[in-house]
Amino acid sequence: MKPKNIVFVGKSIDNYIAGKNGELDWLDMIPNPDQLDMGYNNLMDEIDAIVMGRTSFKTVLGFDIEWPYKKQVFVLSRSLKTVPKNIEDKVTLIKGDENEVLETIHKKGFNKLYIDGGKVVQNFLKQDLIDELRLTTIPIVLGDGISLFEALPKSLEFEHVKTEVFYNEIVQSCYKRKR
Amino acid sequence: MKPKNIVFVGKSIDNYIAGKNGELDWLDMIPNPDQLDMGYNNLMDEIDAIVMGRTSFKTVLGFDIEWPYKKQVFVLSRSLKTVPKNIEDKVTLIKGDENEVLETIHKKGFNKLYIDGGKVVQNFLKQDLIDELRLTTIPIVLGDGISLFEALPKSLEFEHVKTEVFYNEIVQSCYKRKR
Repeated sequence: MKPKNIVFVGKSIDNYIAGKNGELDWLDMIPNPDQLDMGYNNLMDEIDAIVMGRTSFKTVLGFDIEWPYKKQVFVLSRSLKTVPKNIEDKVTLIKGDENEVLETIHKKGFNKLYIDGGKVVQNFLKQDLIDELRLTTIPIVLGDGISLFEALPKSLEFEHVKTEVFYNEIVQSCYKRKR
Repeated sequence: MKPKNIVFVGKSIDNYIAGKNGELDWLDMIPNPDQLDMGYNNLMDEIDAIVMGRTSFKTVLGFDIEWPYKKQVFVLSRSLKTVPKNIEDKVTLIKGDENEVLETIHKKGFNKLYIDGGKVVQNFLKQDLIDELRLTTIPIVLGDGISLFEALPKSLEFEHVKTEVFYNEIVQSCYKRKR
């Protein structure tokens, strides 16, 4: 199966994915009475594994919920040594540069990957390793926070795949890298 | 007539409005065989005047074309002293902070304004003076350049008005400030 790296993320109009102190409350500012998953379940069905950084991993651990992922999670971290006992079989710590990490993950048979977390997405973009961007825009100019994008060594052309609007407020655009 | 400040701008997925050296060629990377104006003519009919900074003004002057605006143009600049003779009646130089500038322009009877140019838009956003954002996204991650947004002192909530997709590639979303 051809490898593919997908970004799926909620963002503000000004492309922040979290507030300055990691605030995520604004992501829910538009009520979701129909509990639409806005493509999340499709994504989860489609992928083989999730790749995230230490910060996203800690954030998920900090939510007072059961471990939310059915798919294998790879956590990119130089500093983490262990994961909590109850999710030891679900989480793999991994380190190295983006290409090495992908090689390791592909060798284990995981090809379609959900790339999550600000820093990880930025580093993958820098290496032109992102194949799909699925960006969900909340109608707020956040003004400050953790950016989805930072400067890249070169421009990356995408093709627009589709745009959907949820509740006439939330705009989701999907893009595929032109190669 | 109630004053209104509208931003209408083409941008990359990563919210650049021009390249590092002012490059605008990527704005035309999607062919426009039907010469769609993508809301530009409607905007021009709707507004009373255009407000832009010195950089945008110089850029327009640099295009080898006739003066393109039918509506009065106010150029925000501390340094400019004169405008070319042939557009003297079409262009007004103006200085001061954003609120002073608006007061002056409104007193002259211009209420619905098209706010153009990176720095000017950012300064208006900082003062929460933007009422509508009409953002046209070209399917490219530009990687570097002149940003549409920079850090703001506070978040600004908008409501989504409509999203249109042109040529299945260009996504235009219009937002109205929630007040």
